[in-house]
Amino acid sequence: MPDRASPAPPTSRRDFLRKGATAAVALPAVMSLAGCSGSKAVAAPAADTTRAAASPPSEPTAREKADAMDAMHEKGVKAFPARTEGKGNQPLAPRLEKGVKVYELTAEEIDWEVEPGRKVRAWAYNGQVPGPQIRVREGDRVRVKLMNQLSQSTAIHFHGLELPNDQDGVPFITQPPVKPGEGYTYEFTVPNAGSHMYHSHHNAAIQVGNGLLGAFIVEPRRPLAAHKADVDYVMVLNDGAHGYTLNGKGFPATEPVVCAQGQTVRLRFMNEGMMIHPMHLHGMHMTVIAKDGWDQPAPWKCDTLNIAPGERWDVLVKATNPGTWAFHCHILPHAESEHGMYGMVTALVVKPATA
Amino acid sequence: MPDRASPAPPTSRRDFLRKGATAAVALPAVMSLAGCSGSKAVAAPAADTTRAAASPPSEPTAREKADAMDAMHEKGVKAFPARTEGKGNQPLAPRLEKGVKVYELTAEEIDWEVEPGRKVRAWAYNGQVPGPQIRVREGDRVRVKLMNQLSQSTAIHFHGLELPNDQDGVPFITQPPVKPGEGYTYEFTVPNAGSHMYHSHHNAAIQVGNGLLGAFIVEPRRPLAAHKADVDYVMVLNDGAHGYTLNGKGFPATEPVVCAQGQTVRLRFMNEGMMIHPMHLHGMHMTVIAKDGWDQPAPWKCDTLNIAPGERWDVLVKATNPGTWAFHCHILPHAESEHGMYGMVTALVVKPATA
Amino acid sequence: MPDRASPAPPTSRRDFLRKGATAAVALPAVMSLAGCSGSKAVAAPAADTTRAAASPPSEPTAREKADAMDAMHEKGVKAFPARTEGKGNQPLAPRLEKGVKVYELTAEEIDWEVEPGRKVRAWAYNGQVPGPQIRVREGDRVRVKLMNQLSQSTAIHFHGLELPNDQDGVPFITQPPVKPGEGYTYEFTVPNAGSHMYHSHHNAAIQVGNGLLGAFIVEPRRPLAAHKADVDYVMVLNDGAHGYTLNGKGFPATEPVVCAQGQTVRLRFMNEGMMIHPMHLHGMHMTVIAKDGWDQPAPWKCDTLNIAPGERWDVLVKATNPGTWAFHCHILPHAESEHGMYGMVTALVVKPATA
Repeated sequence: MPDRASPAPPTSRRDFLRKGATAAVALPAVMSLAGCSGSKAVAAPAADTTRAAASPPSEPTAREKADAMDAMHEKGVKAFPARTEGKGNQPLAPRLEKGVKVYELTAEEIDWEVEPGRKVRAWAYNGQVPGPQIRVREGDRVRVKLMNQLSQSTAIHFHGLELPNDQDGVPFITQPPVKPGEGYTYEFTVPNAGSHMYHSHHNAAIQVGNGLLGAFIVEPRRPLAAHKADVDYVMVLNDGAHGYTLNGKGFPATEPVVCAQGQTVRLRFMNEGMMIHPMHLHGMHMTVIAKDGWDQPAPWKCDTLNIAPGERWDVLVKATNPGTWAFHCHILPHAESEHGMYGMVTALVVKPATA
Repeated sequence: MPDRASPAPPTSRRDFLRKGATAAVALPAVMSLAGCSGSKAVAAPAADTTRAAASPPSEPTAREKADAMDAMHEKGVKAFPARTEGKGNQPLAPRLEKGVKVYELTAEEIDWEVEPGRKVRAWAYNGQVPGPQIRVREGDRVRVKLMNQLSQSTAIHFHGLELPNDQDGVPFITQPPVKPGEGYTYEFTVPNAGSHMYHSHHNAAIQVGNGLLGAFIVEPRRPLAAHKADVDYVMVLNDGAHGYTLNGKGFPATEPVVCAQGQTVRLRFMNEGMMIHPMHLHGMHMTVIAKDGWDQPAPWKCDTLNIAPGERWDVLVKATNPGTWAFHCHILPHAESEHGMYGMVTALVVKPATA
Repeated sequence: MPDRASPAPPTSRRDFLRKGATAAVALPAVMSLAGCSGSKAVAAPAADTTRAAASPPSEPTAREKADAMDAMHEKGVKAFPARTEGKGNQPLAPRLEKGVKVYELTAEEIDWEVEPGRKVRAWAYNGQVPGPQIRVREGDRVRVKLMNQLSQSTAIHFHGLELPNDQDGVPFITQPPVKPGEGYTYEFTVPNAGSHMYHSHHNAAIQVGNGLLGAFIVEPRRPLAAHKADVDYVMVLNDGAHGYTLNGKGFPATEPVVCAQGQTVRLRFMNEGMMIHPMHLHGMHMTVIAKDGWDQPAPWKCDTLNIAPGERWDVLVKATNPGTWAFHCHILPHAESEHGMYGMVTALVVKPATA
């Protein structure tokens, strides 16, 4: 796996801080963060950090350094969920043509704001990273019209769908590549339920890494009662050209998952990156119900779920515990730097039943 | 995990292309690749790639660049399965001595062709990478005679077999190292069924990385009817000194798994490398039946199976879907570069029942 | 994942060797290593290594080089388990205050000896890496008093415990950061059984990487008979600033797990690092009974268990096979270099029933 430098946001946050910016950051209504009044803080034997008190004014004391670091961390948390331009993974409504659900996907190069102020070049479907979420039902007839506005050829593989071979989207094995400026149409009857993906299968290490990917969810014809959920959330993990992201954004621009106490949340994790990401939920456990769209014969519980590239895991969370819960990749350098949390961090917000 | 550069083949393929080589590449009979006639291609609104039409002749247009890239990709696919010198993981017939199955393994340095034209130095058993496949039955009496023709000491650990301690192959814990020019004999009654491995356990990061490894398959005394398979295929994954390989070869020199429609294929994945490799099968799912040789109590389904170093996973594939199906590690840089697919890519070829 | 150089010990071991150190190393009584008499060694056709016999005396022959390498390997194994200063993961007895179990944890910077002679700077709880092991029972009332003697702010997250939100330990989300020289008190009723962890959740990539972590074991109110074990061993894996470690030490300073033949050993793996570590046990298999503290509905067997950052896996080993068994991470560069075994290597020592 490639050695990757930290994405840019911590630096820009530091610059922001240095310039003494004081822009007010609105606290989102859904979040009830701790008062941070320090009421539980108690005096402890003084560390050697107090010795720095006699330093000349140009040298910050240890406490001042700690305060400066904490301020950066606080700013990140308080900015969450930060507004950025563009939102990926949005439901795409089909056009109905004689009983066929028709989806149009245009692959093109765009600017994409990963965190506030950090814009990258992305290769995107319909201007979104991840591409728009396609959600159909087992047995549906589906037509996907790809338009290639990139400067390279491309193709779409429907990862997880057990399609006829000529719809599998692998250039020179199942179809010709789709040239720049040209289009290609896939059409099939959706064969198997589950959390699947669509992405480029041509020069894919580059094209998927740059953003040509999306979720393809297939509802089962006969859903299991045990899988009934109040909230159904798709979380696409990535670590390509745009840094560590959840649904195309890095913290604090990631989106919280919000529910009411007592509700059941279904999370559909999908890894479109090059590294594993063990996602850790605070405060509650997850019950693993499906792998790659196939029901697990014996659902099992965990709080940290290791998701490898290409894998999809579906879990249920019974939201019994009210509060704002950190939810992040537990490879800590994917989630935090000295400048604060960033990258693969979001929150599960469980609104109290009485609120 | 080490940061590794792409192996050489893409570069050599590019050179090949530059020199205008026109050597005909035979298409293997087992494969039925798409016609690539472009019959489904449709006109799309012109991308800015068309603007390049006025460029001076020395500057290739975007379309020309796309065509050049596609040609490299096509050449790789069309070359598959490419012929190379040497084949690893070949069944090794034992010599019978008074009811004992005797296997001789000579460790020596050799030249090994990973892909057409790319030769590397390898440390191999009997001139093969992976070493020859040993396949015995639970309860068999087995003698393995190691001859060390290397310039370093070595030893063999039978990974997964629950042997008496003095047959475990760990120098200075269970035996002395086997010096260059010397030999050593292991002898045991095979204790437990399953997909196991044998490899060096001395200076192993180097010795296994260079090729001193092989499959050790133990058939159960009483096979389960549910595990009956028409094809039984061992796939050893590696990422050591020779780059990303399946059974010692990189695409397009990897071997396709071939079966007839309706047959059941048993795949035995083994990771002898330093990285995870989530293997993704197109077109059909895999049912996971064993881990490290031990039956799974509740077999489960997936299309992407994450295999960590030292692990073995057995799966069954019911080959219902005819065609040539891409089958590759889903860490995309292990499978594709801008020059085309390479490394950990092969295919499952399901021949139509009527063919 | 970061590209990391080998930790220092191999080099220092080499220096040690060069200087002709001859310090006697006591063999631990619990270990019964092979005689290494070479009685099974047999003559084999001479390799080209014999040709080196005519080399001038200043050039070592291949055999001399092999002997020198083997001597380094032997020295490491014979030194195991090597004595070092400091021992982490030691049980911490609570002080009882009106029915509340009170634990005091002081975070401070210390020197920590990872292997004989290799000292590093560590950030530790109570002078230990990992911090002291806290072991309580489901339903216990617990108070944890943190004293921060570091030069940075910090906080404790109880990873895996389903606590009220304000005890979750995430600065600016559930509490203010605990400043240098200050303290903070957590108090809760232990909600769920299992193998959990506590660690910093502030600047955590650095603080946990430097050692601010420990095991938090919760015994169930009603233990399952099937989980009864004679030995209960917590193994914390790490790969941060101190190199590859098991319970804060690298081989040969790691601690063997010791039991008598016929006993059942419960191992509780916890990964506090940034990389996966597939732990491989020689000679016997492991039955996986819990994930992140939650019982597995269908326990399964393996000999190599892949443990990702943040995960905890509990296994049972029925110690049927007497001997000293290598037990190590199977990412081989985490376990062995040309200078011998190091890092994430220990042994399961099964003392014969008759001994």
